[in-house]
Amino acid sequence: MPTAPVNSASSQLSEHRRQVAINGVTITPVAFADPPLLNTVGVHEPYALRAIVQVHTDAGISGLGETYGDAGHIARLRLAAEAVVGVDPFNINALRARIARALATDTIEGGHGMSGMVTGSSTSDRVLSPFDVAALDIQGKLLCVPVSDLLGGAVRDSVDFSGYLFYKWAGHPGRPDDGWGAALDPEGIVEQARRMVDGYGFTALKLKAGVFAPDREADAVEALRAEFPDLPLRIDPNGAWSVDTSVRIGRRLEGVLEYLEDPTPGIEGMAAVRRQVDLPLATNMCVVSFADLPPAISAGAIDVVLSDHHFWGGLRRSQHLGGIAETFGLGLSMHSNSHLGISLAAMVHLASATPNLDYACDTHWPWKDPDEDVVAAGVLEIVDGAVAVPTAPGLGVELDEGRLESLHRQYLDSGLRERDDTGYMRRFEPAFDPTSPRW
Amino acid sequence: MPTAPVNSASSQLSEHRRQVAINGVTITPVAFADPPLLNTVGVHEPYALRAIVQVHTDAGISGLGETYGDAGHIARLRLAAEAVVGVDPFNINALRARIARALATDTIEGGHGMSGMVTGSSTSDRVLSPFDVAALDIQGKLLCVPVSDLLGGAVRDSVDFSGYLFYKWAGHPGRPDDGWGAALDPEGIVEQARRMVDGYGFTALKLKAGVFAPDREADAVEALRAEFPDLPLRIDPNGAWSVDTSVRIGRRLEGVLEYLEDPTPGIEGMAAVRRQVDLPLATNMCVVSFADLPPAISAGAIDVVLSDHHFWGGLRRSQHLGGIAETFGLGLSMHSNSHLGISLAAMVHLASATPNLDYACDTHWPWKDPDEDVVAAGVLEIVDGAVAVPTAPGLGVELDEGRLESLHRQYLDSGLRERDDTGYMRRFEPAFDPTSPRW
Repeated sequence: MPTAPVNSASSQLSEHRRQVAINGVTITPVAFADPPLLNTVGVHEPYALRAIVQVHTDAGISGLGETYGDAGHIARLRLAAEAVVGVDPFNINALRARIARALATDTIEGGHGMSGMVTGSSTSDRVLSPFDVAALDIQGKLLCVPVSDLLGGAVRDSVDFSGYLFYKWAGHPGRPDDGWGAALDPEGIVEQARRMVDGYGFTALKLKAGVFAPDREADAVEALRAEFPDLPLRIDPNGAWSVDTSVRIGRRLEGVLEYLEDPTPGIEGMAAVRRQVDLPLATNMCVVSFADLPPAISAGAIDVVLSDHHFWGGLRRSQHLGGIAETFGLGLSMHSNSHLGISLAAMVHLASATPNLDYACDTHWPWKDPDEDVVAAGVLEIVDGAVAVPTAPGLGVELDEGRLESLHRQYLDSGLRERDDTGYMRRFEPAFDPTSPRW
Repeated sequence: MPTAPVNSASSQLSEHRRQVAINGVTITPVAFADPPLLNTVGVHEPYALRAIVQVHTDAGISGLGETYGDAGHIARLRLAAEAVVGVDPFNINALRARIARALATDTIEGGHGMSGMVTGSSTSDRVLSPFDVAALDIQGKLLCVPVSDLLGGAVRDSVDFSGYLFYKWAGHPGRPDDGWGAALDPEGIVEQARRMVDGYGFTALKLKAGVFAPDREADAVEALRAEFPDLPLRIDPNGAWSVDTSVRIGRRLEGVLEYLEDPTPGIEGMAAVRRQVDLPLATNMCVVSFADLPPAISAGAIDVVLSDHHFWGGLRRSQHLGGIAETFGLGLSMHSNSHLGISLAAMVHLASATPNLDYACDTHWPWKDPDEDVVAAGVLEIVDGAVAVPTAPGLGVELDEGRLESLHRQYLDSGLRERDDTGYMRRFEPAFDPTSPRW
């Protein structure tokens, strides 16, 4: 059997699989430096928080997951961690059931991980996610296949990402400039985009909006169009606009945008905008759980759904979302929060095995210091706007214990325990009001 | 690593998976004896046709699939077989794309495999199905894990099936009685049910209807209820009733049936019945492909969808159907045609890994001579109304070359090349008219 994935497989055809069980979970909160990126609820704090989930097995193999680092979420992860001990890591259905049971009496508040921008995601899917990813990592390592194989097979060798543009300050107040410089007007955004495109080869651009007056943000989109005539462009005001404003700005940008993402809050508002604007409407705010799909589809609220395995229950359940998108004629793209390499690897495996992924995915990756991560360097890199799908077993990334320890120390030292873009903004603009829609 | 599934895995963590590719496909039409079971389009012929698909790899491992045996379908399978050579069996997404391309210019007629009862299923999903199953069988054998593990893990050790009752003649005309006896009235159906329950331990019963006047069939259901007060009961007239008749009979059987399956044809008709009858409506006729789901859901036509991996594109795509059912609040059950052991094994693995399977599955298994199969005896058995999920690698069943050869010879000798319940019935009742709705 010279070409079989596993040497010994052929001699074991008559044997049943030996048992393997989860025998422990390590949850490590970490913090990594994050620039002062502006959004409609405030500004990114000096550190972004994540939780690294290591799922251990009695086979001596561990798997990796990464998720939000908010204290409430971590408390729920700990409930889940107790519940999954003894479960077969090949049985993601059992993981899901155990976690749902463990959370049935959960009274923990908050922990949505999105600084108040998305609070409607399913708590059990949010908690399940890193365990699903870690279980698939374990399966792949034990079986010597990449996670993409376990998801139906890669249909692409690399996954396209969009360059994610932010209005930003030059640096955190009271700290040195971060090297990216300020971006507070169309010129600053175009300059940032030029650096993104030149440095990473991005073939699509997305502007995080909802920060300044809508027309000023539309000016920035038009400036990007002038500078990059061939690149698909998107704008995402995170629901900061009223229906009327969304219609007005949407019409202004018809023929310019690839899609208009979450201009206004809620399914009804999105449906009203969609009836009046000739642009695909995308969302990662009004459809954030499976329960949101029937009403959104029924209302005709959206054209494109942005998946995010962190709140859609991991990679296997995100594939169901892909199947639903295909069945109901919805486009499919992918949302990103500030994240580290475990999440990027998981996103890339999922995207590679999703035939109907129609758009370049979002990622915050360029905003992260390359030296700050929990995985060993060298696997994940954006080249020509894309990340090559890892082909080593499992997720294809390895934990670097030293880097994990260092980012955990940074978490402890940071004093941050909850993402709070609004509170941080109010330290500099006490009257800041994130109420949406604002314009 | 004493408990790892594969001894050598841990030493290969840094290696990438070696390549394996499909290097040939063998398609073997087979025929097995089938009793004269009556339905609304006619009567089962003396032999049921199936095609056995063996997918071979350059790793020396082959996988098994089973599907319809109609000549048109086999011609398409041969197109697909050419197209998949060279594909990695871990890449089911690539299999699907290759097969869709191979069928893009397909002008073959017919081959739906359902004797005209279901003609709206997706041709490419129907052809993909046995290749998907065989690819998962190969993956499982190479990795030394059961297919249920590749589908997210078994949530049950055994899968419940319903006892599938048919009106029938005592034997095929001109041949000896088949041992089951005739069942042409309520007494005959109850007697058949008693034998099914005593012999197999079924804990649910389904009556194939659409054969006699609807009230006479409702009499049979009520006779079953009297004899088996605790067993869930279903009736399936295969769309033989008008909306008015469906409403009348449905109301008569409210409180008696677990669900009413396909009383009337089409999404609109089903929706009209559903508005007027207080019973869950199930279907494997008005929703038979992903394209049928949006209009059926929008019309409120159904409560329960019966999956069938033979026309829903195999096991992985049937899981998407499960995800859609869960998301849209539909119940999930499973449909069956006359089948052999490869299909039963595939059905059991899929059902075991589908948490939201709400009902006992259908199977024609008891109607098949246990000695007629293509897999080695001993793995699949109905005990207490359920089939234990195989735990050996892959599907957990092994091809018996001698049995395959014998059923292939029977196919050649039978002269049958297309399932034709109506044509066979007309040999005995020349005026038989299967037009639906009939009552």
